[in-house]
Amino acid sequence: MLHEKIDELKHDIIAYAQHVEEMLLKSMDGLVSRNEEELATVIEVDEPVANERELLIDDVCITLIAKYEPRAVDLRNILMILKINNDLERMGDHAVNISESALYLIKRPPVKPLVDLPRMSEIVTAMMKRCVDAFIESDSKEADAIRLEDDKVDQLRDQILRELITYMSADSATIKRSIHLLRIGTNLERVADLITNICEDIIFTVEGRVAKHHHDSD
Amino acid sequence: MLHEKIDELKHDIIAYAQHVEEMLLKSMDGLVSRNEEELATVIEVDEPVANERELLIDDVCITLIAKYEPRAVDLRNILMILKINNDLERMGDHAVNISESALYLIKRPPVKPLVDLPRMSEIVTAMMKRCVDAFIESDSKEADAIRLEDDKVDQLRDQILRELITYMSADSATIKRSIHLLRIGTNLERVADLITNICEDIIFTVEGRVAKHHHDSD
Repeated sequence: MLHEKIDELKHDIIAYAQHVEEMLLKSMDGLVSRNEEELATVIEVDEPVANERELLIDDVCITLIAKYEPRAVDLRNILMILKINNDLERMGDHAVNISESALYLIKRPPVKPLVDLPRMSEIVTAMMKRCVDAFIESDSKEADAIRLEDDKVDQLRDQILRELITYMSADSATIKRSIHLLRIGTNLERVADLITNICEDIIFTVEGRVAKHHHDSD
Repeated sequence: MLHEKIDELKHDIIAYAQHVEEMLLKSMDGLVSRNEEELATVIEVDEPVANERELLIDDVCITLIAKYEPRAVDLRNILMILKINNDLERMGDHAVNISESALYLIKRPPVKPLVDLPRMSEIVTAMMKRCVDAFIESDSKEADAIRLEDDKVDQLRDQILRELITYMSADSATIKRSIHLLRIGTNLERVADLITNICEDIIFTVEGRVAKHHHDSD
């Protein structure tokens, strides 16, 4: 009975992860295609839904622990879902931040062609998909591999920063837009950090090995 | 017996919160007084200690749940400590980010007199102290009041951003330093967001009222 409930919970968290992934995709697509409606949807529709889902999953986790008094692996699994749930909610917040900055940017001329940010967001959403699979399969090797992607994200973010400093130095009229672009980069980077956290939790739950303390970059 | 263990756990989390508060104070003092050694200590000594503490408290929480099968208020209290523990580790990461940017800044001439950032950090560390007390006293009214401070932090951060844009526009040589100052502001703001999260958890644990979904600002 408990195992069925944990399976249901896993389905819920997968659905939640997909919802947050959609939010990220929409926020970046809204930026690239200059689609105001899409960006507004992330903020006004998708985020309230994300918040409801978090509270619901939180509640189920706590009820399961209180009712079934799970031990060992079951308990660790539920506590991990509780943590992932919390991290997903934060990722949703980052998608909102991206949408907000995108709403500012799409009303103004582009500072530069958007290349690195979409590339960054591709890597981040791919990490997210793989992370959900690794969680389902309890695949700690895959979780370990996903963490390596985080370096690519950090490098792209540094590259974006360097490039934007050049633009800002050349033309001070681009400073405000550049700071919004930088904010989008930082938010994507934090999503990658949160995914890395989840991967480390997967490694710990599967292998009992502490893979933590990877250091958040911003 | 369980209650004694929970009390011990509360002491551990208070000590951990004080350690992280020290990290924040040192990172800002190192910036203001241009003390390289103090900043290096945060990164090289204090953060590893913070990480160890997190893992230790995590472990105690999980062991208590598995061993004593706590219910209702006790279970909620342990789960809240688990969450606060996670948030404190993130705050420690923010102190490290601040120290890193401070290390860059203290080797260069100041962009402007440091007024708003120290003011911001005063508010944030005061929030943190009050938050720990509210947690110990299970004082949800105080937790509710602390959340209001978050608006002041957000306002200061916006003010810093506006001011820095003026500096960057006037002299492009200040752009890189300005971005580091902005990064410090954003990290302080995120600490305030995490404290607000903890306050919301306190309100939920004490009153069963969902105070959440305050929206993280960056």
